[in-house]
Amino acid sequence: MNKTILQKGINAKLASRQLVKMNTEQKNNALLNIAAELDSQRNAIKAANKKDLDNGREKGLTKAFLDRLELTDKRIDGMIRVLHDVISLKDPVGEIIGMNTVPNGLKIGQMRMPLGVVGIIFESRPNVCVEVAALTIKSANGVILRGGSDAINSNLALTGIIKKGLINTGLPETAVEVIENTDRESVKEMLRMRDYIDIIIPRGGLNLIRFVEENSLIPVIRHDLGICHTYIDEFANIEMGISIAYNAKVQRPGVCNAMETLLVHKKIAEDILPKLKTEYDKAGVELRGCEKTMGILTGIKMATEEDWSTEYLDLILSVKVVSSLDEAIDHINTYSSHHSDAIVSNDYNNGMRFLNEVDSAACYINASTRFTDGNEFGLGAEMGISNQKLHVRGPMGLRELTSAKYIVFGNGQIRE
Amino acid sequence: MNKTILQKGINAKLASRQLVKMNTEQKNNALLNIAAELDSQRNAIKAANKKDLDNGREKGLTKAFLDRLELTDKRIDGMIRVLHDVISLKDPVGEIIGMNTVPNGLKIGQMRMPLGVVGIIFESRPNVCVEVAALTIKSANGVILRGGSDAINSNLALTGIIKKGLINTGLPETAVEVIENTDRESVKEMLRMRDYIDIIIPRGGLNLIRFVEENSLIPVIRHDLGICHTYIDEFANIEMGISIAYNAKVQRPGVCNAMETLLVHKKIAEDILPKLKTEYDKAGVELRGCEKTMGILTGIKMATEEDWSTEYLDLILSVKVVSSLDEAIDHINTYSSHHSDAIVSNDYNNGMRFLNEVDSAACYINASTRFTDGNEFGLGAEMGISNQKLHVRGPMGLRELTSAKYIVFGNGQIRE
Repeated sequence: MNKTILQKGINAKLASRQLVKMNTEQKNNALLNIAAELDSQRNAIKAANKKDLDNGREKGLTKAFLDRLELTDKRIDGMIRVLHDVISLKDPVGEIIGMNTVPNGLKIGQMRMPLGVVGIIFESRPNVCVEVAALTIKSANGVILRGGSDAINSNLALTGIIKKGLINTGLPETAVEVIENTDRESVKEMLRMRDYIDIIIPRGGLNLIRFVEENSLIPVIRHDLGICHTYIDEFANIEMGISIAYNAKVQRPGVCNAMETLLVHKKIAEDILPKLKTEYDKAGVELRGCEKTMGILTGIKMATEEDWSTEYLDLILSVKVVSSLDEAIDHINTYSSHHSDAIVSNDYNNGMRFLNEVDSAACYINASTRFTDGNEFGLGAEMGISNQKLHVRGPMGLRELTSAKYIVFGNGQIRE
Repeated sequence: MNKTILQKGINAKLASRQLVKMNTEQKNNALLNIAAELDSQRNAIKAANKKDLDNGREKGLTKAFLDRLELTDKRIDGMIRVLHDVISLKDPVGEIIGMNTVPNGLKIGQMRMPLGVVGIIFESRPNVCVEVAALTIKSANGVILRGGSDAINSNLALTGIIKKGLINTGLPETAVEVIENTDRESVKEMLRMRDYIDIIIPRGGLNLIRFVEENSLIPVIRHDLGICHTYIDEFANIEMGISIAYNAKVQRPGVCNAMETLLVHKKIAEDILPKLKTEYDKAGVELRGCEKTMGILTGIKMATEEDWSTEYLDLILSVKVVSSLDEAIDHINTYSSHHSDAIVSNDYNNGMRFLNEVDSAACYINASTRFTDGNEFGLGAEMGISNQKLHVRGPMGLRELTSAKYIVFGNGQIRE
């Protein structure tokens, strides 16, 4: 057992017990102070970040990676804004729900409380430190941040500022701990600290997520693939179908809520597919079609079985013509990663059946799947997007950093 | 991969997609039919159960084990009653919460949906089959039951009846699957079927639970130790303190919500401890005390560090005298298994601090911890009691077999 990592777990756990005693004003003050520190320490942040950028360039990291790593003034403004957004959110801690009196006179209800200590494992983007700490401080959780090696100087600078803000306002600085050891072993240590960490959130590539799932003794919020679908129904408005299908694929193809497979009802396929292809061609989207699609469009590749379960994260789209709503729902429930799926239809019953029967975290009627996001859903910041069904589906916000314990008011009841 | 077990997973997953289309009346009809079948097939059930009892006697199983295994007419009545109780519960599937319109006009809310397929691993008690199936059918989940080898004939008889009830009422019989293979390998197979099982609930000894935690790729509802505390505050009614502390230890010591450690404020210790010892002596409770307790009571053993973290499940109680509410809360948050803990006090502020600061699934003021139970809390039947913080704390009932997915109503929105 690595003693430094274990000690950070113990520290964060103890700090979380202090945090739960703080009222909303005290927690908001800390966030406000952190925002002010970020603003006044821009140069120190950028200097630390420059070390990471220089190291990254030397290591030959990709331009896209370096871009995610960079902390510009605009990004610092963004972090400050997130802090203010979280300050304005309602504090979920202590909310009491479902209070009832049972026959023996006990008054039984549930009260929302912090999860305890959150362990988060993330790659590159250092602004995650601030977004996550804002949410965990406000929800009275401790957090252990374990970022990637390429951002370690930036992460240490940012968490140093967060700790300063906590100290300035009388909150325990160990409520936010960062693990400096960036090898895989440090992740493995975290995953076994079940006495000190209550939940693990891996944010990163599939390799990381699988590693965490295989090794964790602590409950994990899985946050993996986004194989999203758009189904254009026979009763769709054709223009709307084109607009949504284009947006879901092209507007930002590299993110988890972008569409990977388009399903089109056979009755409208001959009308809409050529129109869609014209649009997609302009954006450089490569289409891969089922047999029926190949009969309508020329010059495209055949989709293989593998295509239906691939997250391209790129300007590639698999296309399938279906004979019915049932076939569309079956295909989605079989191949979707249960993230976000949409129907385009003006038929009331088809729309409602899609919402009821598609087993995904976000089910849409007549909108682009690109909206699945904590900010767009009105949650303020987010910890990530959950693909699993336990505890939270879709964007994980402030409220999902709490769970409900039972509280029981008696006047001497004993069990017979 | 064991093909039979895998196939049952696939079957249950497909069945769960059918179940979600059923309305409450259809699901209640199935439960009613199962209740009628249980009533008319009492002899067949008892004959199958007799095989298990005979085998058990031959194997030399303990009397307590054989008692839990036995299906008497009274127990069959109990199973029928559970089915009727679950019929009377409100169907949580489809409940819509928090519907809002965001600035771009999207209407975004959440809808409660089944988890999908529940894998439950349990020991001895065959009536678990009926209790669990009642809850999973009503909540439109598939279930895979993997019971212990000693109850296999009883489990097969009961699940045969459940399947008959499903067929009789037009529901998919594969919504309830039972795994006949009762070796550890079959559990391991289940734990890796992440495409077909959404949640694993182990009900059994600590060995089983640790095995499941170490090997599962699927989210687990942990349901382990019950190290429960009662703290008698300086402002307690002494009579009430004695009554509650006696009940919590003695009424049924072998269950998870029984008290294992008693904490007493130093100001009342000399008054209450001898009175409590008189009562405990009558019931044959062995006391193990801290140093201060040893100074008040004679003829008791010293409690070791290990005692504070031991679940005796027996007529043994560790006793500690504390100097303050803070010390009591610290002790509980350090040694409790976060199941059920109680304060006895007439001081408003101490009671409220206890509720707020004790990090347990059920926190009580002035009542016995023995009430932590799905039935006592008004949930009808329960799947188990969760010791973890993700998704559910305390008794897991019908509602906790669902989670909320996002539903989004648009009119053509695309992301800019």
